[in-house]
Amino acid sequence: MTDGASTPSAERIYTAGLVIIGDEILSGRTHDKNIAQVASWLQVQGIRLAEVRVVPDVETRIVEAVNALRASNDYLFTTGGIGPTHDDITVDAVAAALGVEVIVHPEARAILERYYADKGGLNEGRLRMARTPEGAELIANRKSGAPGIKIGNLFMMAGVPHIAAGMLDALTGTLEGGAPLVSETVGGFIPESEVAGILREIEKTHENCQIGSYPFFREGRVGANFVIRSTSKSDAESCLHSLCDALSAAGFDFTPGGI
Amino acid sequence: MTDGASTPSAERIYTAGLVIIGDEILSGRTHDKNIAQVASWLQVQGIRLAEVRVVPDVETRIVEAVNALRASNDYLFTTGGIGPTHDDITVDAVAAALGVEVIVHPEARAILERYYADKGGLNEGRLRMARTPEGAELIANRKSGAPGIKIGNLFMMAGVPHIAAGMLDALTGTLEGGAPLVSETVGGFIPESEVAGILREIEKTHENCQIGSYPFFREGRVGANFVIRSTSKSDAESCLHSLCDALSAAGFDFTPGGI
Repeated sequence: MTDGASTPSAERIYTAGLVIIGDEILSGRTHDKNIAQVASWLQVQGIRLAEVRVVPDVETRIVEAVNALRASNDYLFTTGGIGPTHDDITVDAVAAALGVEVIVHPEARAILERYYADKGGLNEGRLRMARTPEGAELIANRKSGAPGIKIGNLFMMAGVPHIAAGMLDALTGTLEGGAPLVSETVGGFIPESEVAGILREIEKTHENCQIGSYPFFREGRVGANFVIRSTSKSDAESCLHSLCDALSAAGFDFTPGGI
Repeated sequence: MTDGASTPSAERIYTAGLVIIGDEILSGRTHDKNIAQVASWLQVQGIRLAEVRVVPDVETRIVEAVNALRASNDYLFTTGGIGPTHDDITVDAVAAALGVEVIVHPEARAILERYYADKGGLNEGRLRMARTPEGAELIANRKSGAPGIKIGNLFMMAGVPHIAAGMLDALTGTLEGGAPLVSETVGGFIPESEVAGILREIEKTHENCQIGSYPFFREGRVGANFVIRSTSKSDAESCLHSLCDALSAAGFDFTPGGI
């Protein structure tokens, strides 16, 4: 991390690096979606993505990229390599880069025990996902069992894009140095699966805004609150306006401020 | 470039680096498609993509990435920053990295004069696209006017994906490379966390093969494709056979070729 990270200033622009880990990206088999979503998310936080490196599932290569990008940025994110298989070595590589031990994190183990209780229980592979560098905290995983990992200003996230998205969502607004975020909310008994296209379209046409969708089940009905976040109040309001118009046009009732 | 580039051997695996240049990727405004298409193209050429870096439109940052990746690979590709505007500085950065001058390439100028003859002719911006590092050759652009640039083992391509695709196509079969990789795939609605031990064991007993595990979430169920890569077809087939036997023995249904 740069020295400046400990002396925040309203003027300084905080930066982040991103290391994408995985042979499947470098072979072309999997099309990366994490660069775009991490970039957009950081943009909304008011933090600049300064560089991305894509490296293979090789410990020395991960260590090299992690050390280079954490030395030159305030924050470092990684995606990929935290799953259950033998080629998931990100935890080991980050621990090596930081010069700390790998431990089984008690809270992560408890989360996985609960998650797999009715899915055959923990086994050797699944238990791998409870391993963290010593001194780490967990990042909530709202989509599946295994949590992400935070150690200092380094964030290790899943490679599967929708799981990484949930982890980013859990981190929203928590990073020091970001421009202050404003939010606008609208909600209703609206199944989010029926408005996914609307949300995507509105988000795409309001580039400084991000729309989070938070589904619920209440009074026997499904619904969702949609939260627009931006560093610009006028951009957030304009986005809210467009979203409400689109929900109206699609025949949905909604409540400003959310329900 | 590594010294080995001038002493080819059928055994050695040739590698390439890729530098993606552009603020628009790092801001999340543009979703990169070049990593996947360059990766897939290299795979077919029998050349391994070893690392990708995404850097902003800043000369020092481009020079740093170009020099790092050309030192550690046989080939280096860049995408982006070869257009007509002031922030298109890839030619200048690569020339600086190589320690050569920037010239107006006569053949490129002639191509652009023909291309723009009925489109208002050359202007200052369009003429920028005839600039190359001294000593460069051109890569045919079958989609629009401005050519790509080849200098030694370094290939500078457009950032617009369909134009870059045409330039890759023009280069197909022209790169001296190593043995082509073959791959065998098997997949199914198999949670990878339940077969991590099997994958590790099979990979360990087939040392010329690498097994990648690519999870997905589809039709409400988790599954994975397992891809075996090797430079030997018989080794890959033998490994596939062992993997299928092991999956069967563990009670999993699977589909040859993947799903």
